[in-house]
Amino acid sequence: MAAAVTAAWAQRLAGVRGLLLDVSGVLYDGGDGGGTPIPGSIEAVARIKQSGLKLRFCTNESQKSRDKFVGLLRRLGFDISVNEITSPAPAARQILKERGLRPYLLVHDDVRSEFEGMDTSDPNCVVIGDAGDGFSYQSMNEAFRVLINLENPVLLSLGKGRYYKETDGLMLDVGPYMRALEYACDIHAEVVGKPAPEFFRAALKEMGTEAHETLMIGDDIVGDVGGARCCGMRALQVRTGKFRCDLSPSTSADCSPCILCASFPCTPINQML
Amino acid sequence: MAAAVTAAWAQRLAGVRGLLLDVSGVLYDGGDGGGTPIPGSIEAVARIKQSGLKLRFCTNESQKSRDKFVGLLRRLGFDISVNEITSPAPAARQILKERGLRPYLLVHDDVRSEFEGMDTSDPNCVVIGDAGDGFSYQSMNEAFRVLINLENPVLLSLGKGRYYKETDGLMLDVGPYMRALEYACDIHAEVVGKPAPEFFRAALKEMGTEAHETLMIGDDIVGDVGGARCCGMRALQVRTGKFRCDLSPSTSADCSPCILCASFPCTPINQML
Repeated sequence: MAAAVTAAWAQRLAGVRGLLLDVSGVLYDGGDGGGTPIPGSIEAVARIKQSGLKLRFCTNESQKSRDKFVGLLRRLGFDISVNEITSPAPAARQILKERGLRPYLLVHDDVRSEFEGMDTSDPNCVVIGDAGDGFSYQSMNEAFRVLINLENPVLLSLGKGRYYKETDGLMLDVGPYMRALEYACDIHAEVVGKPAPEFFRAALKEMGTEAHETLMIGDDIVGDVGGARCCGMRALQVRTGKFRCDLSPSTSADCSPCILCASFPCTPINQML
Repeated sequence: MAAAVTAAWAQRLAGVRGLLLDVSGVLYDGGDGGGTPIPGSIEAVARIKQSGLKLRFCTNESQKSRDKFVGLLRRLGFDISVNEITSPAPAARQILKERGLRPYLLVHDDVRSEFEGMDTSDPNCVVIGDAGDGFSYQSMNEAFRVLINLENPVLLSLGKGRYYKETDGLMLDVGPYMRALEYACDIHAEVVGKPAPEFFRAALKEMGTEAHETLMIGDDIVGDVGGARCCGMRALQVRTGKFRCDLSPSTSADCSPCILCASFPCTPINQML
């Protein structure tokens, strides 16, 4: 039985040269004290690295700078370094720079260092990330007032996830707060991060693989699986993290084929690789 | 000129037997210390009452109970009593009662008394109002967790306004936060309050006039003007409160005819009545 499973996975991975891994909900669940690795995921990452497959971590993490995020993951036991991570804050910084934008930063304190040195006086745009407890009425209202007073309001959102899972339960992500500002000002945000195609393409470029030979693995059917497949990549959804049988069209409890990720059944990462 | 203006208004009001008045942005702007009456509005209310027109105040106020709201308005100088007010919290209470719902109340502390005595244990729905500073990440997450764990999530929203004006600037209203929860849980809220037709019809019933002989006056082109006209009422938008020339299709700076409220130019209430 185990051999049959292995053979099935080997077939599914045929032609794959690179892997993009989501982090939260795939490798670990955040929470008090930093969070907890998902059983088997530390070993899965090690096996991928030994296998010769190219590997990059493609995350919408916007509560921490890359330095802090990698520090946390290393403490949890993962073999990971800053230059292996594609995350939205540096991509947003690049956009701000190119377009001469001065941001109001509605972001978590731990991610502010990614915007260090940028001019934030007299803001002419808003950058919104997963600010967590920083999403007070006052901070939301300040961001709203910046936007409503601009002739051409620009709202850059570091992802658009609905929620994610921490060890003590589901947590609102940046997406709902992005929607709140969109509605208040009757505008559309520009999403930096998954599922934006530019973001996946940047990750592919950094890894040096083509879309068709790359597999994205994540727990978000829209941000991870849908986004990657829109770029021509293969994708599959794990059954850990925020995965919920009743909400996802991708699986039933017995792991029937996924309507989005085709023939891949969905399963924890440690059973895939 | 003044006589011509008066004659024009008399013609516009021909056949009108009842008035529904929005309050915030029409009669006063809220803010520190309770707020400030809009110049001339106290006298306008007095003139309406002397004129023999029926009058009712139709507000989406959801930061205060009717008692507290009326207390504030009376302190500001308005001739107004609790039984002249149609507001969403009592309407929501009625719905909860009829459907046997136990609410998680994401509302301002000052409006909780409207829900006194209701069973809020083990909630099977969420009621969201203009909670102001009560919109913390924690309270939003609690509401989200209630909804996401329900088989049939019910979100009752006391209005869906985008923002309103206080003396020191524009403030986010309940609508953006309603949208945040809608997006997080992939659901649609049931709006109790303007522009819901049931709410306008309840106000008409309480006042005892027919839709075609009733005029709604407000500062919100969607919640007040659009909602009332959908119910067959006449409506006009004042140029006070949240009114902004650049956002509203209804007027130009020189008060050209309103595309929504037909022949009525938009103007402060003290110049109308």
